Amino acid sequence: MSWCAVGLARVGGTRRMFPAPLLLQCRRLATGGRTSDDILELCRRRCFLLGEKMTPASVLGGRHSLGPLGAQMKRNLIKEWWDAMVLHREQVLPIDSLCRLPGMSNPSPGPPPKTLSKACLERLQNQSPTQEELEKMADLRQDLLNGALYYYPSCLELLNRKLPFGITEVGRCFHPISDNEDPDTCRVGERTAASLVWFSSAKTCAQWRDYWLRQRLLWWRKFAQVPSRFSSGDHPDEDGMKTSLIQYDFPWGKEPIERLGILDDSALTQMHHGPIAHLHGRDGRKSAIPHVVWMSSDVEGGLLAYLCDALQVMKNAAPRGKEQRRAVLKIHPSLAPVILAVDLGKGPAADLRLVCQGLCTELRGRGIAVWPGYLETLHTPMEQLFTRYDEMGVLFTALVSDVTLESGLLQLRSRDTTIKETVHVSKLSAFLTQHMAAAAKL
Amino acid sequence: MSWCAVGLARVGGTRRMFPAPLLLQCRRLATGGRTSDDILELCRRRCFLLGEKMTPASVLGGRHSLGPLGAQMKRNLIKEWWDAMVLHREQVLPIDSLCRLPGMSNPSPGPPPKTLSKACLERLQNQSPTQEELEKMADLRQDLLNGALYYYPSCLELLNRKLPFGITEVGRCFHPISDNEDPDTCRVGERTAASLVWFSSAKTCAQWRDYWLRQRLLWWRKFAQVPSRFSSGDHPDEDGMKTSLIQYDFPWGKEPIERLGILDDSALTQMHHGPIAHLHGRDGRKSAIPHVVWMSSDVEGGLLAYLCDALQVMKNAAPRGKEQRRAVLKIHPSLAPVILAVDLGKGPAADLRLVCQGLCTELRGRGIAVWPGYLETLHTPMEQLFTRYDEMGVLFTALVSDVTLESGLLQLRSRDTTIKETVHVSKLSAFLTQHMAAAAKL
Repeated sequence: MSWCAVGLARVGGTRRMFPAPLLLQCRRLATGGRTSDDILELCRRRCFLLGEKMTPASVLGGRHSLGPLGAQMKRNLIKEWWDAMVLHREQVLPIDSLCRLPGMSNPSPGPPPKTLSKACLERLQNQSPTQEELEKMADLRQDLLNGALYYYPSCLELLNRKLPFGITEVGRCFHPISDNEDPDTCRVGERTAASLVWFSSAKTCAQWRDYWLRQRLLWWRKFAQVPSRFSSGDHPDEDGMKTSLIQYDFPWGKEPIERLGILDDSALTQMHHGPIAHLHGRDGRKSAIPHVVWMSSDVEGGLLAYLCDALQVMKNAAPRGKEQRRAVLKIHPSLAPVILAVDLGKGPAADLRLVCQGLCTELRGRGIAVWPGYLETLHTPMEQLFTRYDEMGVLFTALVSDVTLESGLLQLRSRDTTIKETVHVSKLSAFLTQHMAAAAKL
Repeated sequence: MSWCAVGLARVGGTRRMFPAPLLLQCRRLATGGRTSDDILELCRRRCFLLGEKMTPASVLGGRHSLGPLGAQMKRNLIKEWWDAMVLHREQVLPIDSLCRLPGMSNPSPGPPPKTLSKACLERLQNQSPTQEELEKMADLRQDLLNGALYYYPSCLELLNRKLPFGITEVGRCFHPISDNEDPDTCRVGERTAASLVWFSSAKTCAQWRDYWLRQRLLWWRKFAQVPSRFSSGDHPDEDGMKTSLIQYDFPWGKEPIERLGILDDSALTQMHHGPIAHLHGRDGRKSAIPHVVWMSSDVEGGLLAYLCDALQVMKNAAPRGKEQRRAVLKIHPSLAPVILAVDLGKGPAADLRLVCQGLCTELRGRGIAVWPGYLETLHTPMEQLFTRYDEMGVLFTALVSDVTLESGLLQLRSRDTTIKETVHVSKLSAFLTQHMAAAAKL
């Protein structure tokens, strides 16, 4: 069982796994290496992330909330994940399990069996976690594997015991982190995991593992500006078994954003005591307890990867011959938190606002995320607006002006080309929908 | 400040609110009143909910995970909520905050200030929570209000300080529950809250409250078979101030599924110490610290409400003149976890499976959730299949048979009418899309 060596411990008859998403790397980051001030400062300024003292370690360690743009982008990312892993799959069942599963907490007083967990944590964090740290973490899930293993019998029943199939879940997980600056305090880091636990016969397990690793890497690359920054690699564990990682090459070095590993049938037998007949699935004519391929993504880690991937510093010809450098977040259209910003050009503001409002309502009706810049009553110069929207990753900006009132034509400015086109107001919705659909298919 | 009387306590300079979603009612349910075995047994059998010993109290108290159908239905419900509250709104910003916000945990040793929380809990639960119970809950959020108040300044900045606006979040919250059967143990209940915190000037606050209450009630009723079972009512607090509830009339009595209340500007000033200029928003020409309308839905409670609402026991004319009673979950098409089940009729199984597979791929590409019944290799009588799918709330069942191979025609059976229509395989996707769109607009 490949992941055991890293941190599979039996706690109260159940398993605890500590893939420790990015902790190992974060520690290194906090003390040295290249900085990543550009992207983090932009994320803070444009409210992708919230909070003070933002460092790669604090972001990847799950100590920041997501602001409006980050929350919307995360939602888009999870939607893409769900579509690829649930909607478009034949035999994948989603579940939504509790953060504290019954039978996995330690409600009774007395010393909980934490020896192995502690050892794991020590290895991973290179320092002893405090007792308080462990106590706080005692009951909260650190990953989504246990939920899938725990509810495997119900899902198997629902599919008439047919193998292979997968159980998937997206949910908040928790991990203990020690504060470098104040070693006495301990905090709990949070991350959203997107996990697929795939049950198949022992014979096909290795093939499935290769299949899923390829699929997952392709998926990550699909939305990237520079796909080659996403790579897969093997992570040799101490017993010589392998865990595969999907990594992103951040400005400060490679970090895993997804892990993929194999577990044998003991994953299920150790979770479910007693008679094992109800664990048997049908694979063709044979009946057996399946092996497991488990992959788990770090959603916020992936989000930061895509933000780093999207950041480009562009040279921009400003009106008076000056050249300015400006940051553009070229986020993939499927992930971009805002597709269209609607703003006012020259003309009677009250009338134009009515046009904008109608336009926004129509676009929202088609599921297109709109930023209502026209509501703003303070005047902002146009170039400043474009700078702001580029930093927000807004795909297009529509400018409604007196020309629109006369002829129905508006100016549509593209984030990626900075070219302004003239589009009829009645064609805008179809244009955007087609643009999005085309980008999604690439 | 209306909700204070119920459970607004200042803990470490911040607020804790204990709306205690359904605890009060659950206690009553667990000991008496009408039972609800029908719906819970069906939810368990068809894997909407997972776990043993299901009671209204345990389900509403957040002690069960959601199975595949429940997880998909919850996802649909949240999507509808998001569309109505974020996508289609001009001034609502989503955030995604940590379950343990910085500054709201008590990392330092020493007695945490829990006096008021304890008093609140005592009142709500009518018994003393154990120390352990309180300790476990000390850091985990019980609602999403604090996150919105905490990040209000960042969001205000993003909108150029313009009022009114809202901050919305959907996320897991935690509450302590005592186990009736084993009073020595304590557990933590979990629920998903969908919250909107609406900031507006003091003058318009009451109007906004009425507006939102009406909007929310309409929203809940939109997806109901019997809309009148959703009702709103005032919940008089002890100081005479009001909290409004949106309730559902469960088989065992009314339970709140959403709460709505008003907080004055002290909500923000108590959260943010020091100079208050950064809290000021612009409302027209005036600048002021806004008042707050806060509404918070219990997503799993709403899910159970819709399941109860959907359950109908139908008389069914079985082939040999027998009459059977059978349960149908008439879940609204926008919420139904599965839109179409695809199954095999008579004919060469291998060829038919290919047709089914192509059909499913096409439908999934259009975002339609499909149940691949055709993968099943064990034969199930047709009527038994329909019974199963009706209990799963599957909207339509497509039967692909040798006729399909010859003429492209398949049989489409409707859950709601039980009528079987003949539809050409090329028309199915458009038919379903139109059906869904029409249902969404009703």
